Amino acid sequence: RIDGQRLWDSLMDMAKIGPGVAGGNNRQTLTDADAEGRALFQSWCEAAGCTMGLDQMGNMFAQRAGTDPDALPVYVGSHLDTQPTGGKYDGVLGVLGGLEILRTLNDLDVKTKHPIVVTNFTNEEGTRFAPAMLSSGVFAGIHTQDWAYAKTDAEGKTFGDELARIGWRGDEEVGARQMHAFFELHIEQGPILEAEGKDIGVVTHGQGLSWTQITVTGKDAHTGSTPMPMRKNAGLGMARILEKVDEIAWSHAPHAVGAAGHIDVYPNSRNVIPGQVVFTVDFRSPDLSVIEDMEARLKVEAQKICDDMGLEVEFEKVGGFDPVAFDEGCVTAVRNAAERLGYSHMDLISGAGHDACWVNRVAPTAMVMCPCVDGLSHNEAEEITKEWAAAGADVLLHAVVETAEI
Amino acid sequence: RIDGQRLWDSLMDMAKIGPGVAGGNNRQTLTDADAEGRALFQSWCEAAGCTMGLDQMGNMFAQRAGTDPDALPVYVGSHLDTQPTGGKYDGVLGVLGGLEILRTLNDLDVKTKHPIVVTNFTNEEGTRFAPAMLSSGVFAGIHTQDWAYAKTDAEGKTFGDELARIGWRGDEEVGARQMHAFFELHIEQGPILEAEGKDIGVVTHGQGLSWTQITVTGKDAHTGSTPMPMRKNAGLGMARILEKVDEIAWSHAPHAVGAAGHIDVYPNSRNVIPGQVVFTVDFRSPDLSVIEDMEARLKVEAQKICDDMGLEVEFEKVGGFDPVAFDEGCVTAVRNAAERLGYSHMDLISGAGHDACWVNRVAPTAMVMCPCVDGLSHNEAEEITKEWAAAGADVLLHAVVETAEI
Ligand SMILES: NC(=O)NCCC(=O)O
Ligand SMILES: NC(=O)NCCC(=O)O
Repeated sequence: RIDGQRLWDSLMDMAKIGPGVAGGNNRQTLTDADAEGRALFQSWCEAAGCTMGLDQMGNMFAQRAGTDPDALPVYVGSHLDTQPTGGKYDGVLGVLGGLEILRTLNDLDVKTKHPIVVTNFTNEEGTRFAPAMLSSGVFAGIHTQDWAYAKTDAEGKTFGDELARIGWRGDEEVGARQMHAFFELHIEQGPILEAEGKDIGVVTHGQGLSWTQITVTGKDAHTGSTPMPMRKNAGLGMARILEKVDEIAWSHAPHAVGAAGHIDVYPNSRNVIPGQVVFTVDFRSPDLSVIEDMEARLKVEAQKICDDMGLEVEFEKVGGFDPVAFDEGCVTAVRNAAERLGYSHMDLISGAGHDACWVNRVAPTAMVMCPCVDGLSHNEAEEITKEWAAAGADVLLHAVVETAEI
Repeated sequence: RIDGQRLWDSLMDMAKIGPGVAGGNNRQTLTDADAEGRALFQSWCEAAGCTMGLDQMGNMFAQRAGTDPDALPVYVGSHLDTQPTGGKYDGVLGVLGGLEILRTLNDLDVKTKHPIVVTNFTNEEGTRFAPAMLSSGVFAGIHTQDWAYAKTDAEGKTFGDELARIGWRGDEEVGARQMHAFFELHIEQGPILEAEGKDIGVVTHGQGLSWTQITVTGKDAHTGSTPMPMRKNAGLGMARILEKVDEIAWSHAPHAVGAAGHIDVYPNSRNVIPGQVVFTVDFRSPDLSVIEDMEARLKVEAQKICDDMGLEVEFEKVGGFDPVAFDEGCVTAVRNAAERLGYSHMDLISGAGHDACWVNRVAPTAMVMCPCVDGLSHNEAEEITKEWAAAGADVLLHAVVETAEI
């Protein structure tokens, strides 16, 4: 078993970097705080006897040697970046849980045939630079590196420039590594495990996602002196589309969800009718045909609303991934580990996207989930217990050791 | 008659300061560009032989002496600040039209009994620091100076600090000046004069306004892993309220308008269900009872929407003024001037709020309006013709000279 207190202490130490305003974290990707978090993680890995690899996307790979020089490593990991108002565990638990495994194996002086590598993937969250899971996507050959480098944040800074600026652009070719297997431990970010009273979620599938950025264009005009019939109110168009987003998602519930988290209104002045609104609709489902249906209906409905109001509308797909089925062998290793350790467990579909969803394209992959309080995540109040974290890391340890072979 | 070309040249020279991104202006109040615009205006006033007064709100008063040392001055003016994506004429025409009157009287060597003062009121637009017409409001005793100084912009900077920072906080007590009369020339910012083919609007009344800032609070949570029934989506609540705003305004049309120009979504991340939305509803009508009805219905409807969705809602009145009836004597002077000069004219209710609406509380006041293309304002594409500007300034000249007495 891993050392639950040591894992917890490391989580709390990492949370001191890029603190939020309400007890959580704001350690967004490629900020100075991200750089500081990476440096702390690296120092811990080196203290645990690992060598650190760094690729051209800033993905970090801390390797503990195996006994067979020809054996491919077993990878574990997740991400250290957070939402702007994020929690202390989303992503971080998977990276520091991986480190805790290595520390435990060191303590017990256990050697594995396959090396074990703890990974920190850059920009999983996708808030500052869309899409989410950007660097695991490049790793898995989904995106090109040039495309990723050109992504810009709200201030127009590019991913490539910011990665260089914080000093974490490595030389290693992205995706050159071969993985024997990949395991990601993550908090559920949803309410199911807690509601069902289970310690462990054995993740068999991941929901697919579609991000459609919608630009509604009307005419900015004076709110006082423009008669109602002469208005082209892009804000009102956005409001009507948001109603449809909700309606469309509900029509497929419980097999789908939908909302808009990002909404920018221009010029955003109290006495100017909005001339333009840019917002992103997030639709998800474990069923690809449901996602496709929602996307198609959104376009039809939004076009109709805008045509009726004399507004222009444009659609841009800014992110998306298909539903995922994880590797049966790896999933079984996770389920067996939970069983062997005596933790209550259930099979689960991940509601969120994870680096594991992309890595699954290039290596046998599975995920371990632990509950989080009230299912709350992407919120500074995100909370887990020390016991939940420890149970998740224990299962990760056993699944990894079984796969890496003693 | 005034010199239409000289007026136009001055408008174009001022428009070079704080240029926008699309041919208009971004010379928001108390920015460096505002300071630069003020300095240019002051240099022009001094060249025209005026003395400049500056009060503690940064209101500027350029005085041309009269022949009777006991006669109260006749004031003209408007504002030099603009919207973030504003036009070149909104406000500026009234200030530089006033200056053009003085230049014309100088050219003709005409002396008036009453001094004439050209005024630039600080922060008419109210975008950076709500409410609009802030400094004319303090001048008219509607707001206290301390209250105005404490107003903050989106970055938390206060009005008082920013006024001092740009170097335009004067010593003069605000509102200490007595006015014989006040005239404001302004573009209509609406479509009526152009549609009716009139050169001049004789403004008899001004619409009243109500700004209600609404804060809807839900719970920020993950867009992927939070099931539909567990969501508290503040963005969806905002959308439903915006629909009601439109419905309520239409129910009183054509005697009312309503919209939300300002909408801020938190944390504004693509994969976070909005936990909070702050937005401002702008309702207007020439009829006070209609405004009160709209305000009351908005609160009832918004409360109902939020209760049904498990959201919290708070209301804050961040701006407002009652409908205005301008001074009959001053209105008659404007109408007579238009008639005498042979300009086509019609009586008009101002759709927008203006400094004149506040000044009307403490001095006999009227407004002159000229058309603007497509009724478009609060938009960088705001446009007028040189002839329209000249006609407006001509009418202003004659109304002022009649009132200031030769
Ligand atoms: N786990 C997580 O929050 N990933 C970000 C991508 C997503 O929104 O699902
Ligand atoms: N004229 C003008 O745009 N004033 C700002 C106050 C208002 O929104 O009416």
